[in-house]
Amino acid sequence: MSKVAVKARLLLLAGLAPLALAMPTAVQAQTAASPPLSPQTQECLDCHGDYHPGIVADWQSSRHATTTPAAALELPALERRVSNPEIPEGLRQVAVGCYECHSLNPGRHADNFEHFGFRINIVVSPADCRTCHSEEADQYARSKKANAVANLADNPLFHQLSETTLANQEMREGRLFSLPAAEATRNQTCYSCHGTRIEVQGTREVEVEGEVVNLPRLSNWPNQGVGRINPDGSAGACTACHPRHSFAIAIARQPQTCGQCHREPDTPAFEAYEESKHGNIFDAQRAEWNWSAVPWRVGRDFRAPTCATCHNALLATPDGKQIVPRTHDFGERLWVRLFGLPYAHPQPADGRTHLLRNQDGQPLPTTLAGVPAAAGLIDQAEQGRRQKAMAEVCQSCHGALWVQGHFARLDSVVVQTNQVTLAATQLLQEAWKRKLADPTNLFDEPLERQWVEIWLFHATSARYSAAMGGAGLASFELGWWDINATLGEMEHSMHQRSGKAGK
Amino acid sequence: MSKVAVKARLLLLAGLAPLALAMPTAVQAQTAASPPLSPQTQECLDCHGDYHPGIVADWQSSRHATTTPAAALELPALERRVSNPEIPEGLRQVAVGCYECHSLNPGRHADNFEHFGFRINIVVSPADCRTCHSEEADQYARSKKANAVANLADNPLFHQLSETTLANQEMREGRLFSLPAAEATRNQTCYSCHGTRIEVQGTREVEVEGEVVNLPRLSNWPNQGVGRINPDGSAGACTACHPRHSFAIAIARQPQTCGQCHREPDTPAFEAYEESKHGNIFDAQRAEWNWSAVPWRVGRDFRAPTCATCHNALLATPDGKQIVPRTHDFGERLWVRLFGLPYAHPQPADGRTHLLRNQDGQPLPTTLAGVPAAAGLIDQAEQGRRQKAMAEVCQSCHGALWVQGHFARLDSVVVQTNQVTLAATQLLQEAWKRKLADPTNLFDEPLERQWVEIWLFHATSARYSAAMGGAGLASFELGWWDINATLGEMEHSMHQRSGKAGK
Amino acid sequence: MSKVAVKARLLLLAGLAPLALAMPTAVQAQTAASPPLSPQTQECLDCHGDYHPGIVADWQSSRHATTTPAAALELPALERRVSNPEIPEGLRQVAVGCYECHSLNPGRHADNFEHFGFRINIVVSPADCRTCHSEEADQYARSKKANAVANLADNPLFHQLSETTLANQEMREGRLFSLPAAEATRNQTCYSCHGTRIEVQGTREVEVEGEVVNLPRLSNWPNQGVGRINPDGSAGACTACHPRHSFAIAIARQPQTCGQCHREPDTPAFEAYEESKHGNIFDAQRAEWNWSAVPWRVGRDFRAPTCATCHNALLATPDGKQIVPRTHDFGERLWVRLFGLPYAHPQPADGRTHLLRNQDGQPLPTTLAGVPAAAGLIDQAEQGRRQKAMAEVCQSCHGALWVQGHFARLDSVVVQTNQVTLAATQLLQEAWKRKLADPTNLFDEPLERQWVEIWLFHATSARYSAAMGGAGLASFELGWWDINATLGEMEHSMHQRSGKAGK
Repeated sequence: MSKVAVKARLLLLAGLAPLALAMPTAVQAQTAASPPLSPQTQECLDCHGDYHPGIVADWQSSRHATTTPAAALELPALERRVSNPEIPEGLRQVAVGCYECHSLNPGRHADNFEHFGFRINIVVSPADCRTCHSEEADQYARSKKANAVANLADNPLFHQLSETTLANQEMREGRLFSLPAAEATRNQTCYSCHGTRIEVQGTREVEVEGEVVNLPRLSNWPNQGVGRINPDGSAGACTACHPRHSFAIAIARQPQTCGQCHREPDTPAFEAYEESKHGNIFDAQRAEWNWSAVPWRVGRDFRAPTCATCHNALLATPDGKQIVPRTHDFGERLWVRLFGLPYAHPQPADGRTHLLRNQDGQPLPTTLAGVPAAAGLIDQAEQGRRQKAMAEVCQSCHGALWVQGHFARLDSVVVQTNQVTLAATQLLQEAWKRKLADPTNLFDEPLERQWVEIWLFHATSARYSAAMGGAGLASFELGWWDINATLGEMEHSMHQRSGKAGK
Repeated sequence: MSKVAVKARLLLLAGLAPLALAMPTAVQAQTAASPPLSPQTQECLDCHGDYHPGIVADWQSSRHATTTPAAALELPALERRVSNPEIPEGLRQVAVGCYECHSLNPGRHADNFEHFGFRINIVVSPADCRTCHSEEADQYARSKKANAVANLADNPLFHQLSETTLANQEMREGRLFSLPAAEATRNQTCYSCHGTRIEVQGTREVEVEGEVVNLPRLSNWPNQGVGRINPDGSAGACTACHPRHSFAIAIARQPQTCGQCHREPDTPAFEAYEESKHGNIFDAQRAEWNWSAVPWRVGRDFRAPTCATCHNALLATPDGKQIVPRTHDFGERLWVRLFGLPYAHPQPADGRTHLLRNQDGQPLPTTLAGVPAAAGLIDQAEQGRRQKAMAEVCQSCHGALWVQGHFARLDSVVVQTNQVTLAATQLLQEAWKRKLADPTNLFDEPLERQWVEIWLFHATSARYSAAMGGAGLASFELGWWDINATLGEMEHSMHQRSGKAGK
Repeated sequence: MSKVAVKARLLLLAGLAPLALAMPTAVQAQTAASPPLSPQTQECLDCHGDYHPGIVADWQSSRHATTTPAAALELPALERRVSNPEIPEGLRQVAVGCYECHSLNPGRHADNFEHFGFRINIVVSPADCRTCHSEEADQYARSKKANAVANLADNPLFHQLSETTLANQEMREGRLFSLPAAEATRNQTCYSCHGTRIEVQGTREVEVEGEVVNLPRLSNWPNQGVGRINPDGSAGACTACHPRHSFAIAIARQPQTCGQCHREPDTPAFEAYEESKHGNIFDAQRAEWNWSAVPWRVGRDFRAPTCATCHNALLATPDGKQIVPRTHDFGERLWVRLFGLPYAHPQPADGRTHLLRNQDGQPLPTTLAGVPAAAGLIDQAEQGRRQKAMAEVCQSCHGALWVQGHFARLDSVVVQTNQVTLAATQLLQEAWKRKLADPTNLFDEPLERQWVEIWLFHATSARYSAAMGGAGLASFELGWWDINATLGEMEHSMHQRSGKAGK
């Protein structure tokens, strides 16, 4: 669009936009088969189709572009992808376009701004998606993912771990001197997955074809972390798993989607899956599967599970009877928590794990000796319920003996890895006692880093491998070889220093 | 199926099953196009289709479900997938269904049990698959893979390596104390790939829709390792590569299938392939290839090799003339053994490598100085024959100069990596001599683990890279950088300790 | 083909070939739809179709086999894949077959040889491809890639790094003694990607079906490295990215192609991409995209970028308007250089980086303190132009705020990683000063290798992650965790040695 055209549009919209807003059902046919577009969305597309053709094409490929909420609500319950029966009238009869999502709840959006006569939010949040997907948003809000920022930033120990890991350094008088982690460093690492805190900090001028446009200036942007704090105060980013403007369920069901964050060495779920028989069959047959069907029918739409199959999808038999319901609280079929902490332990009852306290008052689900916190973790009955839900998924394709054997092996590996973590912890405590390391910061000395690697990387890898497959991961790749090699190095190093200290 | 239905079926079958067994040709049409099913298989499907729809759907997608042995035997020799011309009459005219495989050789199966009037084996073994696939089963039985359990468990040195690697630890009086590896740890690591020993240990009650079913209790189950010891005494699991109930040749031909076990850091075949030009072309074009054709026609069905192409597939020219025959003894086109041992050496003549003894009496194909065992390894003539077979595969797509240059480079890399392994071994022997380490257990001290990493991880990576491609693997990723860095650390560490010892 | 047939062909060709060469427009129809073949190419195919069916089938799948230069020149400018309007008459009307490429510029080719009556070059070089693809060849010749051999071999510091990394070792009198890197080791590692120097060293006899054929003997062959020195004196191998005989643009556009060389740990571009949202969407949707379209239309042909999209492809809007032009100088849209050197710095102005000198006279783009060289690096204006070109690519799918935020984060990560590299360098200099290490060779002692790992592996990983995505890569996988852990180990190790030295 030329400068002149931009200006013309600007003047035009200044007058017409309010009128258009007053006529939400006035629409313009996209194609014969396509649902009607709102006039506002049509305006968005006219301009942004020139500037950002990729965004528009992506959206055009989406279900949002090819149906209406009204049509979506008419589907049989198991096939329905919207869960709010009270979708506002004004949104029901048009495609779910740019304006339908980027204009919601303007009063709550600190990032709302005037744009060619429209009031637009830059960031679309779970609270906005909730307009149609209410159950999913509510489930998600309860999850550990939605609370991922506070679970890291507001847990003093995790905060210390991340800040120590990300510290910059400079040399002063022949010694390293630790500098605070930079914001860019935080945002490109931990908070890239956990989510950043997006705040509006004045405005920024952007030049578009020679024309200056004023846009809100956002801190810590871009980010699509699972617990992102949005300018409307809500938490999460649905686009973490339903990315960009296709919002495709087909992408959310791909293991690579989860694998953006759940990767070696600290959360090697992707590698465990990739090396498993599940991952093997997925990789060989994925091109033949139906990635978009709702419900997702075992054996008919797919023949081996992905992450989504076991952890959150609505599954059905080939003839469409529900096996397990959909959930967007991703821990709902999990009874034991395998990663991110020294000891595997019962799942927390609340997604806000930063509120947990162990019996020594530390913000951890267990003591450093592995004793589970007295409160805040699910009880045995709930563990049994969750294991049963998961077993129903497994038994779609495996006999009962198989499933029992698999769960029993996982139980035993949890015991084994907790046992060896206890040995590592006691060895470190011995080092602290003998003044070979200083427990003021638990994470900043070679011996302490080796201890962290044992539980955060190696014990976790062995557990993931037991839960999902991937024998190499538990053997020489990251698991037992490294557990014993690192323990051996810790003890050797302590012996070396003690020898010196003893002289 | 409701409780009542299960009971009804139980009572019914108690009377009818023997009759059905007496009428193996009485079948029931699946669809117009499908081959007939035996009445027993139809019974299996009626129930298990409800309980395990994924298994049934997987089987329905298989060649087993869509042809009969009689039809399979009528194909031209090169297109045939069955090799036993003497398939029993009773199996010939029906689809290869649940009952056809899970009822074979009941007298040999310790896992055979009574199930709703049928005698069923839980585990189908290579000895059962042999009923139709006799040549493949015989070839496989000769391979190192089929002997993978004994090759690890009955080789005292390998056994020591695995037990040391998988040991648990506890602290006693301020020191680490080594505990034996747990069975679950063994089964999730080494024996997950090598295979577990499945034994029947009484029975286990399983509840199905409120009804109690008695099933044999299997030790070390589930497992699909290549050398699994089955309850009928046979070794191997065809499902390691032809997984679940599709038994698809298309899956067995995918590199990811081999890559479940042949992975970084100890057997990085998958990574070498993935980083190679072969892997690159495969990844780009795989969707266009014919993964199921027998014979597999070069250039027509595929345009770059996968693991199976070079190592075991029956290959043909585009117009169907055989290039190399199929083999399920996976070493048959290999002359030099690149991994799992300090020195590359001529392939063993027998799959039972645990029987090898070097000139110092150790259960190894070479001495610790690299001298090959006097007996048990293939001679130069046989090495030449195997290299020639592989060259014929290569020359389908590469000129003779290319192939000669590639093989010459591999030869040289074998010499180089053996040379540097000798240096590492002599350095460790120096440490033993100087009492800086104790050779009682070759694998349990930091210096010894570094030595292991040099040959088991780093030299192997350099060799695989020379054999299959993947320059990074040989450079900074796992190969020469790590070889020299680890040697440097070993020497530095010995110097540190000697310094102290010398004071 | 039988021995007799080979002989017959030999005799026949001895007489006929010159005649055929004199009639370059005499062609033979391949199929109704296919373009005519030259008689020479027809001869090649007749024989090589028997010996190397994979090569022939690959070529038959290529655009070269299915069009003629004349037809290619008639396409609209943006759709054109050939850039030389002056393609020689004799080549214009036939398919681009074996002979058309393997017979070019015989006078320059030291690898030209007589083959059944034809003069054939074994190696086809960029100088040959230039016959039709002149712009691409010229752009490529300016790039760092084309100069990759000299940039490594003729830079004394890089040469020292590679030779130290690849050294073999032997034990002499209880100590390691370093041996020069073997040629095979060089060729399987650094020079596999950078390219080898192919020279003709006499001839070699090859047996073909019992018949002896004389072929030039090539040194350091096979190799497809990006800077390969060819027997005609030219540099590069187009087949590095357009592999084998399909020369497919579809393969060159796949991330795995770049990922053959640009991999963990030193150039982890592939892993950064794979873990990014771009890589996630690519992986989920790649099967639906048009990988061969020219120009490559954003949103229509693909919906997320691959390496080629951002770095070199000719991009257009969905309706075919150019966004950015094609380039085969792969640094042309890059302003800052992120890898391979201690400090990120402005891109070099010339592809021959081995000519750069820093202010201390070292062959580096910065001093060891991070100060950029006074000459040879692009200035700020040029940096701005390149960033603008890249921003235009980004803005096809991202808003201006997003792009600005992304670039600002990258800028900051460059500052952060340069800062921590400075600390590491000063720490090493302190060690040199205190005689804890010897700066004669910068790369051969444990402390020096740790320093190298900090910048070559870990800082680079953090930068790539900031540039392309992949949070894990910057966190626990290779980035900040390892930066701080390695620094901690360096300091601890210096303290240990100093302690001893101080006694």
